Amino acid sequence: MEEVDLIIGAKYIIPIVPSRTYLVDHVIVVKDKKIVDIVKKSQVDEKYKAKEVVQLGGGARAGDSDLDEYILTAGFFNMHCHSAMTLLRGYADDVSLLDWLTKFIWPAEAKWVGEEFVKLGTELACLEMIKTGTTYANEMYYYPEIAAEVMENSGMRATVSVPIIKFPTIYANNEAEYLEKGEKFIEQYKSNEMIRPALGPHAVYTITDEAYLRVKELSEKHNLVIHTHLHETHVEVADEEKLNGKRPLARLDGLGVLSERLIAVHMTQLTKEECQLVADNKVNVVHCPESNLKLGVAGICPVHQLEKCGVNVCIGTDSAASNDDLDMLSEMRCAALVDKLCYNMTLKSELEPNPQSSGVTPSHRMLSMATINGAKALGVDKELGSIEIGKFADIVAIKVTSPPIYDAISHLVYVGTNRVTDVWVGGKNLLKNTVLQTMNEDEIRKKVIEFSKKIKDIRPTTGTIVIQ
Amino acid sequence: MEEVDLIIGAKYIIPIVPSRTYLVDHVIVVKDKKIVDIVKKSQVDEKYKAKEVVQLGGGARAGDSDLDEYILTAGFFNMHCHSAMTLLRGYADDVSLLDWLTKFIWPAEAKWVGEEFVKLGTELACLEMIKTGTTYANEMYYYPEIAAEVMENSGMRATVSVPIIKFPTIYANNEAEYLEKGEKFIEQYKSNEMIRPALGPHAVYTITDEAYLRVKELSEKHNLVIHTHLHETHVEVADEEKLNGKRPLARLDGLGVLSERLIAVHMTQLTKEECQLVADNKVNVVHCPESNLKLGVAGICPVHQLEKCGVNVCIGTDSAASNDDLDMLSEMRCAALVDKLCYNMTLKSELEPNPQSSGVTPSHRMLSMATINGAKALGVDKELGSIEIGKFADIVAIKVTSPPIYDAISHLVYVGTNRVTDVWVGGKNLLKNTVLQTMNEDEIRKKVIEFSKKIKDIRPTTGTIVIQ
Repeated sequence: MEEVDLIIGAKYIIPIVPSRTYLVDHVIVVKDKKIVDIVKKSQVDEKYKAKEVVQLGGGARAGDSDLDEYILTAGFFNMHCHSAMTLLRGYADDVSLLDWLTKFIWPAEAKWVGEEFVKLGTELACLEMIKTGTTYANEMYYYPEIAAEVMENSGMRATVSVPIIKFPTIYANNEAEYLEKGEKFIEQYKSNEMIRPALGPHAVYTITDEAYLRVKELSEKHNLVIHTHLHETHVEVADEEKLNGKRPLARLDGLGVLSERLIAVHMTQLTKEECQLVADNKVNVVHCPESNLKLGVAGICPVHQLEKCGVNVCIGTDSAASNDDLDMLSEMRCAALVDKLCYNMTLKSELEPNPQSSGVTPSHRMLSMATINGAKALGVDKELGSIEIGKFADIVAIKVTSPPIYDAISHLVYVGTNRVTDVWVGGKNLLKNTVLQTMNEDEIRKKVIEFSKKIKDIRPTTGTIVIQ
Repeated sequence: MEEVDLIIGAKYIIPIVPSRTYLVDHVIVVKDKKIVDIVKKSQVDEKYKAKEVVQLGGGARAGDSDLDEYILTAGFFNMHCHSAMTLLRGYADDVSLLDWLTKFIWPAEAKWVGEEFVKLGTELACLEMIKTGTTYANEMYYYPEIAAEVMENSGMRATVSVPIIKFPTIYANNEAEYLEKGEKFIEQYKSNEMIRPALGPHAVYTITDEAYLRVKELSEKHNLVIHTHLHETHVEVADEEKLNGKRPLARLDGLGVLSERLIAVHMTQLTKEECQLVADNKVNVVHCPESNLKLGVAGICPVHQLEKCGVNVCIGTDSAASNDDLDMLSEMRCAALVDKLCYNMTLKSELEPNPQSSGVTPSHRMLSMATINGAKALGVDKELGSIEIGKFADIVAIKVTSPPIYDAISHLVYVGTNRVTDVWVGGKNLLKNTVLQTMNEDEIRKKVIEFSKKIKDIRPTTGTIVIQ
């Protein structure tokens, strides 16, 4: 009889690896932050004695019906977020992308972004991410040192990018200054267990060749991933072609930036040849369907085509300002649904339409994209991203209340009524029966409501009529 | 001081009519099933004395944080559902549309559909619809008399179509027999307060010209709406062109079936000229984005183009077998997001791509499509579909827990973390703080789990590996 720290059991366990597989009536055994075994529930008592046992489902928990069941799976990797911007959730909607940026988001950022904004906004994002099952965030925003501290305190894991942009902001004046601050941040976090530093050159239209080369150099020197927006809109692609005679991907290829360390976000404008170029260079792609749709970027990431070429595709929410939440379950569902349409349409990427497309990008692929693929992109898949013996116990529990269930994987991805109730990171409980264990939700929400009143006061008018 | 039955108050009220408007700190006053006033919260005590007062938000309710707020709006109209098929939720996924139909859904229906299946499946659908804020369902399936009885008992409103199809099923042998049974059903329900009968010819490929003409005659005689699938897939359109030399819409036009009494569901394959034809004939269109996406029907309803032509567009979930839930909030969100992509793509409908499309189909239009437009299509908009004085008190309360809120309408449609908690139909409480008041949820779920075990036993194998 072995002594362990924690045993978590539920009707269904989706381990992610192996793919398209789930276990019924098993438990996960955790010791020293890691998964040490996955055994049948009926056999666990013979083998293990645990300090804590969490057996979910069958009415074991107060408030649950006897018929409520739970699914356990690996914590989600939100592979693209600007956490602090959660304070600008719904700040502007249903306006053109140009108006969204120039009349709303950029002026609001210019006015409000600062240490308080980043601290509070990141707290709000962390609480929302934990409540919806994200255990690892790939983060990019100003004041990475503040975001990193908030994220570490929340108990989440994160890769936090150093922001680099050629324009002056409150954070730094030019690329050199961003990089200088960045090097300090990298130094500070390079050995942190929970927070990994990375490089975040904003996008081709805001970064010079010189800065990209410097980023490449730092990436190689410190073995850091590069997190960048790429081919997000057709305007970006057209402008670069006009300016440099090259599409953005070709420019980065010319600079030698394409590699397995690159995480290219959005990629809504891709030809077949570009999909192959991405694959040949082992570039990781992050698909942010809800943000792309909401901002009307005139394209959608051709996930099926990229996967066909062998590209590692991940999923991210982007910021809540263009989503408007940080929920990876709904992001997966959207991605699965929209890829079937994408497959059928004559996209700018010149994919062939196909009438029998509902088989494209099945639910088990979506779950991999939201977990293990994120871990691969960040170079942490030996330790994270699936429920496997030897990996850290980063686990989410999802309550399923809408029968019937013919396939637990499909049910998790396609049924919108499922709710995350519990989250563990390295075996530590961050969310227990929907209640946050490491953050004071009410205190954060109260501060957000106060801060957003100030923001709202000078928000440009929209067409909505409010009767007080 | 006037005596009334019920007063419901919340921080935000979105009345639907007038459009793009919301009220802050008001209450809705209900008497004899109807809304008799909408007044400021601060003034209600001077004017009304109510048997019951439900003031939501601010921690008034046990389990709520002081910071939880609520939105009240009109009950949703799910304008296309096959309720009993909720028993086949997730029965098959991620296979081609042809396999989905021929290997999974049709054999399962042939084996299982009967009185018990329809009763239990409709009960499951009603409990799910009520829990997600649908107060009016536009229903189409076999055994309409059973579905109607279940829906009436649940307290919901519904328009229930008589099914008509040229193939023999367990319910009837030919079009004449469906119509014969249908006339009895119409007779039975034509004066019912909550359930309205309608005519449900299945689709152009399953209905003869003779049956369409008989449907048209009955529709005119009894003033009934006609609920039909139309232009759902490119295969349907291509096959009709081959068979009759006409596209389906043109065939129905030739038969004189296009009118304000027609509710045409799906409409994913439309030219600009067809959008205008639909508008000229005042045909109502139901958009089912999640089902269309999931089944990979190779098109999407061009909502913006139809609305531009003046068409009354509504929203439906279709059955849970291709969705996989009956949640109108997520359906609205999906519709709002996808229409912006649709606007940008070179569809079969030959719409112009437009780079600045994020302004298309804004959130307030989505809310109208999910409420008042449904009421218009069903001819009940004088009594239902908005929070207006004189209309029935069909009201939903949605708990909003993700601040900030800059615009309550945008927040309701775009933020996926909002949850329906309370539902009233004609002032009668069907859902109270997420608990069903008119249905025994546990009893229904228990029966569903039992029944689905039988269904699962003979389900064809898929690629998913289940470890017991």
